[in-house]
Amino acid sequence: MPSAQPGTAEQQALLGDLVERGLLVPSAVPGLYGRGAPFERIRVALADLVTRAAAPEQPEPIAFPPLIPRRDLELVGYLKTFPHLAGSVFSFEGDEQAAASQSELAAEHADWSGYQSMTDVVLTPAACYPVYPAIAARGRLPVGGVTIDAGAAYVFRHEPSSDPARMQMFHQREMVRIGEPDVVHAWRETWREKAVETLSGLGLDAELELANDPFFGRAGRMLATSQRAQELKFEVTTPIAGPGRTAVASFNYHQDHFGEAFHIELQDGSPAHSACLGFGLERITLALFAAHGFSFEDWPESVRGQLWP
Amino acid sequence: MPSAQPGTAEQQALLGDLVERGLLVPSAVPGLYGRGAPFERIRVALADLVTRAAAPEQPEPIAFPPLIPRRDLELVGYLKTFPHLAGSVFSFEGDEQAAASQSELAAEHADWSGYQSMTDVVLTPAACYPVYPAIAARGRLPVGGVTIDAGAAYVFRHEPSSDPARMQMFHQREMVRIGEPDVVHAWRETWREKAVETLSGLGLDAELELANDPFFGRAGRMLATSQRAQELKFEVTTPIAGPGRTAVASFNYHQDHFGEAFHIELQDGSPAHSACLGFGLERITLALFAAHGFSFEDWPESVRGQLWP
Repeated sequence: MPSAQPGTAEQQALLGDLVERGLLVPSAVPGLYGRGAPFERIRVALADLVTRAAAPEQPEPIAFPPLIPRRDLELVGYLKTFPHLAGSVFSFEGDEQAAASQSELAAEHADWSGYQSMTDVVLTPAACYPVYPAIAARGRLPVGGVTIDAGAAYVFRHEPSSDPARMQMFHQREMVRIGEPDVVHAWRETWREKAVETLSGLGLDAELELANDPFFGRAGRMLATSQRAQELKFEVTTPIAGPGRTAVASFNYHQDHFGEAFHIELQDGSPAHSACLGFGLERITLALFAAHGFSFEDWPESVRGQLWP
Repeated sequence: MPSAQPGTAEQQALLGDLVERGLLVPSAVPGLYGRGAPFERIRVALADLVTRAAAPEQPEPIAFPPLIPRRDLELVGYLKTFPHLAGSVFSFEGDEQAAASQSELAAEHADWSGYQSMTDVVLTPAACYPVYPAIAARGRLPVGGVTIDAGAAYVFRHEPSSDPARMQMFHQREMVRIGEPDVVHAWRETWREKAVETLSGLGLDAELELANDPFFGRAGRMLATSQRAQELKFEVTTPIAGPGRTAVASFNYHQDHFGEAFHIELQDGSPAHSACLGFGLERITLALFAAHGFSFEDWPESVRGQLWP
């Protein structure tokens, strides 16, 4: 078990403020929080704001649970690039005697992991992942591809931290575009601009930045360099709690990575390209608290008008 | 890995109908589905219907993620009574060499479980579980106790099945009452009646039944008998897909089980009692399809008026 990242003094102070006001409810585990009513009200309003921003595209909504088939995680090579962030689900398959032994260990908070075996599900690491096999199952894509609204989905990252902006379980408000390379690329360009506008409209200091994923290990550093050179990932960053800025939205162009893995085919049988965008709803909520204070009733009218039109 | 329960012919037929209409989107794993737009619209309307029914009580909303601390699961003895349903989260803690070996196995869909170790989180087995430690942390309860609206939370049950009414991941619309024994008991009585009224108002054939939890093993049979004798659990059942009726809501009186485990104290220092109610949102949605057809636009006006007032 890695010890949790303690977070900076500013991050700890923000967490303390949020807990004191009942906006976040701590658990025994760092990065796992309940959300009080005002926090949820803002988070849901942000999800709806994205829904309105996406409405002209008429995306098809599909809501997915926070688990995906283990086989799908294996197919996309997630264990190669992000082994440190994945969460797999184990369960008990034993008899009554084994159950009794397991229960005795658990009652003493001792190690009962030996009685658990791997199931065929894992925690969803990114809200776009369940979209690809669902679309692949439909057969070849129509010309122009598809746009899927994957809703506001809980995703898991195994990175315990006392930084309230680094939760183990948080909501990505996710849209996915799958189709021909030019169509997909253009979609991502459009959304990069629209996202900065949307977040600036909330009174946030929002900046678009070239970015890379937190790939694992030495090989990961090369992947990150390559990803940046090809401009595959952009993030919108904003201040939350120092030092530095925090990513609150990201835009990823996957080329044919998922199209290949799941055999999503264009009309000519070649693998489809894909891109996704994800707004980190908890992080944007935190950024709004940091920018405008902890009582949304007192936020600028222009910001409230965007959230609750 | 247990093979999935195949489900009856009626259950398989219902699943086929739901998939054909895009109401459920299957994955490679039985019991794990995406939800199409009409399904979600009904599910959310049901959650809101419960919100309106609960409004006079002015419950305090707290929304929790679908993971809880492993220690909390151990504390309440879940591994003793429901070891077969629990899901624990494992993750990778190794070095680059171990990551490479794990990734190679995963790429071949071979067994990489040896590289995973237990984390300090587990999947939430019931939506009321995270409420108790959160309330315990506040200190002694006020006179009259508290009523918590735990929202519409995803919970996990390790029971792969092709019965669409038996999902591995589904939403419980959950309310929790914690306080003096008489207060808690009276609350559960009130909600038993209110739930039958609410579900009958949706045109469902809703019946209140004495029930027991699906406890594990031989010892579990005794627990079930005792639970029934003390009338600790009631369910509202309705037809979905035969044979028999399916529970769509449950009302549980825990006596001081959680109060003891988490040291939730009444004013006199004695352990608080608790009760919870959970509406199974996916099951109620399925029951509505079974009763009124697959197009909510064509449902009786009285039903639509309840859902979308």
